Amino acid sequence: MNGNYNRVSRAILEELVDIAGGASVLTDEEKLEAYSHDETDAGEYGRFPEAVVLPQTAGQVAAIVKLANREHIPVTPRGAGSGLSGGAIPAAGGIVVSLERMNRLIEIDRENMAAVVEAGMVTNDFAQAVEEQGLFFAGYPMSLQTCMIGGNIAENAGGGKAVKYGVTGRYILGLELVTPLGDIVELGGKLAKDVTGYDLKSLVIGSEGTLGIVTKAVIRLIGNPTVKSDLLALFRTPKDAIDLVPDLLSRGITPTSIEFMDQLSVITSCRYLNESLPYENCGAMLLIELDGNNPGQVENDLIETGKLCESRGAVEVYVAEDRNNIERIWNVRRNLAEAFKVYSPVQSIEDIVVPISYIPAMIPELERLGKKYGMRIPCYGHAGDGNLHATLVKDPALDMDVWRKREKACQEELYRIVQEAGGKISGEHGIGLKRQDFYRNLTDPAELELMRAIKRAWDPNNIMNPGKIFCGP
Amino acid sequence: MNGNYNRVSRAILEELVDIAGGASVLTDEEKLEAYSHDETDAGEYGRFPEAVVLPQTAGQVAAIVKLANREHIPVTPRGAGSGLSGGAIPAAGGIVVSLERMNRLIEIDRENMAAVVEAGMVTNDFAQAVEEQGLFFAGYPMSLQTCMIGGNIAENAGGGKAVKYGVTGRYILGLELVTPLGDIVELGGKLAKDVTGYDLKSLVIGSEGTLGIVTKAVIRLIGNPTVKSDLLALFRTPKDAIDLVPDLLSRGITPTSIEFMDQLSVITSCRYLNESLPYENCGAMLLIELDGNNPGQVENDLIETGKLCESRGAVEVYVAEDRNNIERIWNVRRNLAEAFKVYSPVQSIEDIVVPISYIPAMIPELERLGKKYGMRIPCYGHAGDGNLHATLVKDPALDMDVWRKREKACQEELYRIVQEAGGKISGEHGIGLKRQDFYRNLTDPAELELMRAIKRAWDPNNIMNPGKIFCGP
Repeated sequence: MNGNYNRVSRAILEELVDIAGGASVLTDEEKLEAYSHDETDAGEYGRFPEAVVLPQTAGQVAAIVKLANREHIPVTPRGAGSGLSGGAIPAAGGIVVSLERMNRLIEIDRENMAAVVEAGMVTNDFAQAVEEQGLFFAGYPMSLQTCMIGGNIAENAGGGKAVKYGVTGRYILGLELVTPLGDIVELGGKLAKDVTGYDLKSLVIGSEGTLGIVTKAVIRLIGNPTVKSDLLALFRTPKDAIDLVPDLLSRGITPTSIEFMDQLSVITSCRYLNESLPYENCGAMLLIELDGNNPGQVENDLIETGKLCESRGAVEVYVAEDRNNIERIWNVRRNLAEAFKVYSPVQSIEDIVVPISYIPAMIPELERLGKKYGMRIPCYGHAGDGNLHATLVKDPALDMDVWRKREKACQEELYRIVQEAGGKISGEHGIGLKRQDFYRNLTDPAELELMRAIKRAWDPNNIMNPGKIFCGP
Repeated sequence: MNGNYNRVSRAILEELVDIAGGASVLTDEEKLEAYSHDETDAGEYGRFPEAVVLPQTAGQVAAIVKLANREHIPVTPRGAGSGLSGGAIPAAGGIVVSLERMNRLIEIDRENMAAVVEAGMVTNDFAQAVEEQGLFFAGYPMSLQTCMIGGNIAENAGGGKAVKYGVTGRYILGLELVTPLGDIVELGGKLAKDVTGYDLKSLVIGSEGTLGIVTKAVIRLIGNPTVKSDLLALFRTPKDAIDLVPDLLSRGITPTSIEFMDQLSVITSCRYLNESLPYENCGAMLLIELDGNNPGQVENDLIETGKLCESRGAVEVYVAEDRNNIERIWNVRRNLAEAFKVYSPVQSIEDIVVPISYIPAMIPELERLGKKYGMRIPCYGHAGDGNLHATLVKDPALDMDVWRKREKACQEELYRIVQEAGGKISGEHGIGLKRQDFYRNLTDPAELELMRAIKRAWDPNNIMNPGKIFCGP
């Protein structure tokens, strides 16, 4: 896959050391291992870099990129490596630029409701620092414990509160970007509006590190909602649960999240956590969170939501009355991916997104595909925004070659169904390495060519994270 | 300005007639006049097209663009022509493609809270059709009476409710775009999340018709807020009024709008409308609108806002208790630009945007510039999002040559001040023809080159709206 790229020679390593310092350039096989994979299947997608550099300034990042561009060596930017599409894997070898040491919170600017933060800051640390000031970073993803701001931006991460608050991109006011030619540009600013020139900031958000390396972000903050409430509704069947979602949203109630889990998901996660929720024997559950600043309004919405659940056949409706219970339920939700990995480390977490009205139709399709391809397909996800993490799980006993064929065939059929419903194959995880072949086949060639034209124009030597999305090396 | 372009020959006119029909191709001087200008100063920026085409389908638009690309003839897309930066003016002659006949509301999809609409639909008609269904298009601009959806998208229009609801772009879920090569592509869809490939939709939004012609849009709708309330606060000085804005916003109250008008603005508009508001003799006023679905919350926010105004030195605080009074005040606000045109048709409506915390500092600077350059600079605008329409108004008696020099010098100084404050020269009107020289001078060459690279890659013959933003013909 690295046909025309050059290798990282001893002379280039010396230049890298000159730029970032000896302690910031890694070449030991043992140390490189950690940078050879993300949270996708390492066996299928993993690849070792030739060197890892840990810069501390945008100037160092720019110097590394200039060097790589001059020498025609691939560069892969990396945050926490918690991605689920292989975005941070050095698909063509070369240099991994890890932002982990650029983790400073530069400023919280209350007056302008904005923060300035380096790309390598852990999102959870950022969210906490902001919360201590009574403010709220509403764009945070589900994996916030480990992920970094730069990775969130590269993937335009979604997450737990997107129904009400939208995804990461909505909260990015500005970016400092090192371009594939090694220029440092500042895009956007602490502004509520800005129509000067092309919206390059939005183009870069979600471009999976193929258009440059984000080194700093200006983030829009909002007031921290003072009231939160959660409701858990149990249903006999997944269909009963999912049918309710478009109905709820069209009534003008906007929860922060509507999380769906089918029975298999709940049971697997409970076993993994040694948790004994009393409701593991229902067919599916919806976990609905509401927030706001007016206790009366949140209470009203909660009651109306509960009534709707009951009228739509919920077996039980619980209101999590204390923080402890809320945390237990969310913990089950958050540990789903981990739990399935323990059951069978070989699996594919899907990330399909469909128009809200098509969610109910997806559940029987997933059941049908599971039977057809002989695999478990537990389903959970952000039902409130149409984004379902159906997970194709390999039976531990199944032969690997057979599995790989079934996995691809099942993905292909699933993606066609999604496309026919007006949906897309990724709502928040990205295309990365994992979905690139499917993506190329599913996308209008004219649209692909528009993307390729931008990529060629910004990165003529194709050094910036090659092999991702559509960017064949 | 049309150095290397070809003229619209008789043969090309015949091809245009073949594509769109004879009644849809205009060449009469009289008819062309209406397409030679927008709401900027026609004397300074106006230019006649050689032909105007009024297509009725995206296929016709694509065929026109293909023809123009083949023949190297400039194409300027046009909505209502209500823009304030010259975006719809055919700066290099050639063909104007007016979307005015592509004005159908294709679908209101309640279940997915989305609408599909052709680019030539008048925004006001769209907003009303949606409201009849109890839904709300929150991205609408101030000039919604005349403007069209396609123009709103091209300029990423802001407007009256942006403090709370953001600008047009936030509500665009999908676009049908005719590219500069004449391909028709569908970007986005009825999806709450989508991270498949580059966010081309956001790149196109606000690109002022230089990257293609938007023919259709999928628009996100929200529930129509059931409660609205307005508050009008009068202050002794503009500074007193403006000082309050960052203070209000940092308290967690988010009005839909905070509109600022100085005394000169109010008086001029009242005279124009023959309106006799009792408060035309104060130094400045803030018009604050709140909305929501909970009457208690809106009431609370209104009271707290009123108290804050009083504690910050408001002379009077009125709560507009009936729809009629609210309309009268908003009418004064909406007719400001028109009123100044009657006083003196030669003027420059500025569109600066600064971080909220810098708004108070802008007022004395504008007063200083008015004195220095010997002109009236009334100031009004969307103070809640830092977007001020300071207007440089020519004294009717002043010699035109002197005026042009003073206008440019004043703009240049103003824009430098704005840039030093971390602001930009356009918040919602765009760069267009009017601000392109300033824009080029103020923008980092590396950022400009990133834009130019995209433009060249998508539009190699530079036929799509040349002469705008940075796209010299």
